[in-house]
Formats: sequence, structure tokens, C-alpha cells
Amino acid sequence: MTSAFAPLKNDRFLRACWRQATDTTPVWLMRQAGRYLPEYRATRARAGSFMGLATNVDYATEVTLQPIDRYPLDAAILFSDILTVPDAMGLGLTFAEGEGPRFDHAIRSETDVARLAAPDLDKLRYVFDAVTSIRKALAGRVPLIGFSGSPWTLACYMVEGRGSQDYRHVKTLMYARPDLMHQVLAINATAVAQYLNAQIAAGAQAVMIFDSWGGVLADGAFQQFSLAYTQRVLSLLDRHAPDGSPVPRIVFTKGGGLWLQDMRALDCEVLGLDWTVNLGQARTRVGDVKALQGNLDPNVLFAPPEVIAEQVRMVMDSFGPPHTDPGTAGPTQIFNLGHGISQHTPPEHVSTLVEAVHNHGRLMRQ
Amino acid sequence: MTSAFAPLKNDRFLRACWRQATDTTPVWLMRQAGRYLPEYRATRARAGSFMGLATNVDYATEVTLQPIDRYPLDAAILFSDILTVPDAMGLGLTFAEGEGPRFDHAIRSETDVARLAAPDLDKLRYVFDAVTSIRKALAGRVPLIGFSGSPWTLACYMVEGRGSQDYRHVKTLMYARPDLMHQVLAINATAVAQYLNAQIAAGAQAVMIFDSWGGVLADGAFQQFSLAYTQRVLSLLDRHAPDGSPVPRIVFTKGGGLWLQDMRALDCEVLGLDWTVNLGQARTRVGDVKALQGNLDPNVLFAPPEVIAEQVRMVMDSFGPPHTDPGTAGPTQIFNLGHGISQHTPPEHVSTLVEAVHNHGRLMRQ
Repeated sequence: MTSAFAPLKNDRFLRACWRQATDTTPVWLMRQAGRYLPEYRATRARAGSFMGLATNVDYATEVTLQPIDRYPLDAAILFSDILTVPDAMGLGLTFAEGEGPRFDHAIRSETDVARLAAPDLDKLRYVFDAVTSIRKALAGRVPLIGFSGSPWTLACYMVEGRGSQDYRHVKTLMYARPDLMHQVLAINATAVAQYLNAQIAAGAQAVMIFDSWGGVLADGAFQQFSLAYTQRVLSLLDRHAPDGSPVPRIVFTKGGGLWLQDMRALDCEVLGLDWTVNLGQARTRVGDVKALQGNLDPNVLFAPPEVIAEQVRMVMDSFGPPHTDPGTAGPTQIFNLGHGISQHTPPEHVSTLVEAVHNHGRLMRQ
Repeated sequence: MTSAFAPLKNDRFLRACWRQATDTTPVWLMRQAGRYLPEYRATRARAGSFMGLATNVDYATEVTLQPIDRYPLDAAILFSDILTVPDAMGLGLTFAEGEGPRFDHAIRSETDVARLAAPDLDKLRYVFDAVTSIRKALAGRVPLIGFSGSPWTLACYMVEGRGSQDYRHVKTLMYARPDLMHQVLAINATAVAQYLNAQIAAGAQAVMIFDSWGGVLADGAFQQFSLAYTQRVLSLLDRHAPDGSPVPRIVFTKGGGLWLQDMRALDCEVLGLDWTVNLGQARTRVGDVKALQGNLDPNVLFAPPEVIAEQVRMVMDSFGPPHTDPGTAGPTQIFNLGHGISQHTPPEHVSTLVEAVHNHGRLMRQ
């Protein structure tokens, strides 16, 4: 399945995941293959629909490579949707025009939960085929990141049935019937681990767990209903790709800055951070046992180029000097936004950002 | 104007603001006068519209007292809208049915900013008249809290023109034209201070600044564009009511838990916290120099009564034992939700909450 991929030419991102020294700071952007790119919108138009795009191996490959062709980014990330797993569980995912995703069969009752099971991975074959196809198309230019939503984040969508402002239904289930919530999360953890392992088998060189809605939970509930199941996924992940390479694991909890001390104990290599967190303080609280990924506010990309470059430098300086000793592990930052890039971003501003990261990263190492 | 209000019968809330010992933990709820109450919906129907309700002194008095009549709460809060100040600035506030508030004239350009000024307080007289009317109607049962949005939070609405998911316009202005943003915030700070001082003159016994959107800012930007202007408001506030009573000041930044060390320096008596913050850890980080207000997740109120009581106890226990020495100041919690109560809350569940707070608060002091 993963026969003979081309050797990797740019290993900055992977080295930084393992806290090894690099010549400059690696950078990639969450949602870098997306609507802000005219070439993406053209492919999306040919595909006819969002899921038509995500489920077609050729289209998914094409859009994943678009930002890599345009910018000197240091990693690619699989183009897919966070809701593929619950869709494969039979919840009936639809995208209404101008609205967000919606499930026909939201999980609300004991009966709903009793029917739920980790999906047949065959239903997600299009994702794994896309991973292999993208890995081949990348031809070793940069590594490929696979991803999944966290068990809690998937549960939010599964119980709410759509995006939510207040998470009323999922929190009602959690507080009123924690037993059912734990059942859903256990199923999700199994499904997510199998899903990520299949991506690793298909060619993903790193994996990232998006706990996009962990930050809506109360202190105490977060540790019990989100973090514990993220850790369960991590414990079930394959540590090595079929070719024997170790596969680093990134965990990103949006709004999770208050819980960094708890996340320090996660069995992963990288913690993703949103823009509310000061990277220097995060290093103090996490200790230099994990690489940190982040964390520019995506809205900075609406400012003029000189402001973008200045804000990039401020984020990098807040992290502090990266280590340069090739012989040991030490503090490393993987530059990213603190959330997905906005569809309204001027594409040329991303060039400014990537150039500023690489330039300042070199300066910081002199 | 504030001639001879009745003496205060229940001073638990005010004592706790000043970190003085109380017989039990005081409790009130953000948005306690609101849509979850059938009597509120009846008054709202008579008023015809939300602003019809908020701008009519008799209606505003009626709905402010409704939760006080129904539950043994320890404070009342002025019923009003957070957007009265920008409305009085001439931005043209409207509430479309089924949508949130909207301004006809959003602030986007240099010309828009040049036209902006702190409003004539006469345009807000209906608010101050409501304060006096409510204070009289309360007849000393519980103290009355006045409030305003923070300069930054008002600016979010003023620049976006409506609620926002990504705060793109206000952050674009902030990053691209910080000079204009600072002008807007300086005007807002003056306006908010005048607005709160007029509420104090009219009878408010405590004031609260809602920095509802401070938490969307990046670290660094928060301190510069939100916190600094909250502090400016605080520095301009009258310390005493017309009768000579000191007026405690509460600052609540939703999503501000990471910045508690910065907020420790604010010239206020109470910090409000949302549910993501562990109250024990917050005490450690703030030091026992401020009372803490919060912080139950409002969604707990959808659970059965025994779960509500248990979660209330967990929040109170996380704060730790309140002090009981009548002679000194010490740690005090003012129980509240971490955000406004949901319109879908069963009213009888609020009874459970208030009873649980008062009962457990007594137990904790034994």
C-alpha cells in the first residue's frame, strides 16, 4: 500500500516535532488548502460540492498540493473534513448551501447511543486512498500530516447535529447522563484511533488531533470528557509508519491554554496553541518536553505586509530562542496560525507570512 | 435624585465584594431577568419589542424585580442592553426578529471614527431613570448592580455592526490602523465611565464591566486594546455613591482566565470568571486581593436537580473555604454562572441552584 514513497527533501517540520534543531522555524497553516485560494475555488467548482471534493481522491490530492505549489510551506495536511468519521457511522452528513454541516441523525437518546459503533473503515477508504495519492504526488517535497477530530469534538457535532453557539444538547447529555456520554466518547476514541492508524498505514508522516471544542468545557469536565479520550486515542496509535519512521503526534485544543499543565502529560510530541496563549509562558508551564505549534491570530493576515511581518516576529520572539544544538533535543516552535486561515485572506499575505517566519527563524539562530 | 432610598436588608453581596465575611455565599445570575422566566416573556410581549422593554422605566423595573420575587437571590442587576451606549452615539441600533442586534452605521473608516464622540448622557436618561426606579422598587431587599460593556466589547459591536464569529473587521482595524482603534477605545472609555458614574448617581450600589469579547484577542493585544481601557474606565469611576457608600467594581472578561495575573492589577474589587477557570487556581494566581465571582457552566442547569446541587458544591469546593473572621478581609466567592443564563433553562432549576449555594455556603462556614 505504501510501497516506496520518494525520500523526504524537507524534514524541518518533522525534526521540529521531535524537538531537534533546524536551520529555521518550520511553518504550515491550518486549513492552508482552502477557500482563500482561487485555485481551490476553481477545483471546488469542478467538484460540484464540498463532499464531492473531499471524497474524490484526485480532487483531494490537487487541493492539498495547491498551497505547497504556491508557498514554501514546510508541511502538507490532508484535505478532508473533520466529520468523515461520524458520517461513516451512519449519521447522515449533509452540507446545505450557505450553512454549515448537519447530521440527519443526531445522537440524543439512550437508543441512539446503543446503535452507535465505530465505523467500518471501508467506508473511509476514500480518505486513506487520498493520503497515499497525496503522499505520492508530494514526491518527498514536504511531509504529509494526517488528522482527525478529537472524540469530544466529534461528539459535539454528533449530539448537536450541527454547529452550536452554546453546546446545550451535548452538555445536557454530559451532565444529565454522563454514562451515555462516556459510551459515545469511548466509541469515538476507538474510531479515531483506527482512522488515524489507517492514515499512518496509507502514508501519513505525522498525525494531528483537533480538539476544536475542548475549550467550551468547564474545568474538571474538560479533563474527564475531552482530555482523557484524547489520551486514549494517543495510547492506541501506531508509533511507526510501515517504513519504520516514527510518527509524531500533535494535539490542538482550541481554548485550552488554561489546561497546559494537564496536557503536558499527554503522550504526544507537539501541542498546538491558539493565539490567546503567550508562547513563552506556555513553555514555562509545559516545560521543554513538547514542541509547541502556533499561534498567530489569523486576522493578522488582513493587515498590511509590514504589520504581518512584525506580528510574526513578535510571536516568534515570545517563544524565545530555538535551540541549535544538533546533538540534543531542545525547545522548538512550529509556526502556525492559532486557528484555520480565513477564507477572506488575501493569498499574497500568506507569502509575506511564510517569508517572515523563515527569515526571522534564521536570524534567531545566528 | 437619589433621595432617601430604603436601608439595605441583605448586604451579603456587598460584603463579599469587599472580601468581608458573610453567613453564607451570596449568589446572583448574569441575565437573571430574562427569557427563561414566563413572567419576563409576558412583560416582553406587552412591551412589543426588546428595546420597547429596555427603554421603558416601568417595564425595566418590573423585569429586574421578577427574579428577585421568585428566588432568594442576593443582588439585582439593572435590566438593560449592552449596546445602549453606542446606540446613543448615533450608530442606529435595531433588533431584527430572530436575529441579534445590528447597527445601521458600523465604524469602519477614518471618517467614521472622526465623527464618533461620547454620547450626550441625556439620550441615556431612560437608563438612569430605570436605575432610580428599580432601586426604589427594591426597597432595600438586595443591592442593585449597574453595568456597561467594556470599551473593547462595545468596539467589537460598533465595528462589526453586528455579532461576529471571527471579529474580522474589528481585528483588521486593530492590526491595520491601531491609531484609529485607540481613538475609538478612548472615546468608549470616556463614555463608559460617564455612563457608569451616572448609574451610580442614580442609585447603583455596585457596577460591573462586561468584557464579553476580551477573550477573542491575542495575548498582547488583549492587554493593549482591552485591559488598558477597562483600567482607564476604572480610574474614572466615582468611588462613592451620593449617600457616601463605597461602590464596588466588578470586571468580567469572558475567556480571560489566562490573563488573571494581568487582571490582578486592575483597580477593582471583584473579578468575574467563566467556567473554564478553576477557582482554586484562580485564587493562587490572583492572590487574595480580589473577591472572585463565578463560575458554573450555565448548561449545568439542564441537568436534574441532584446534579445541579452536586456541581454547585464542586464549584464552591474548588474555591475553598471562605473566611469567617468578621474583623478582617479575606477570600470570598460570589456565586454566579460563568456566562448569562440560557433562555431554555427550566425556572425551577434556578431554585435548586440558589438553595444549593446558600446551604453549602453555610456548611462550608461551620
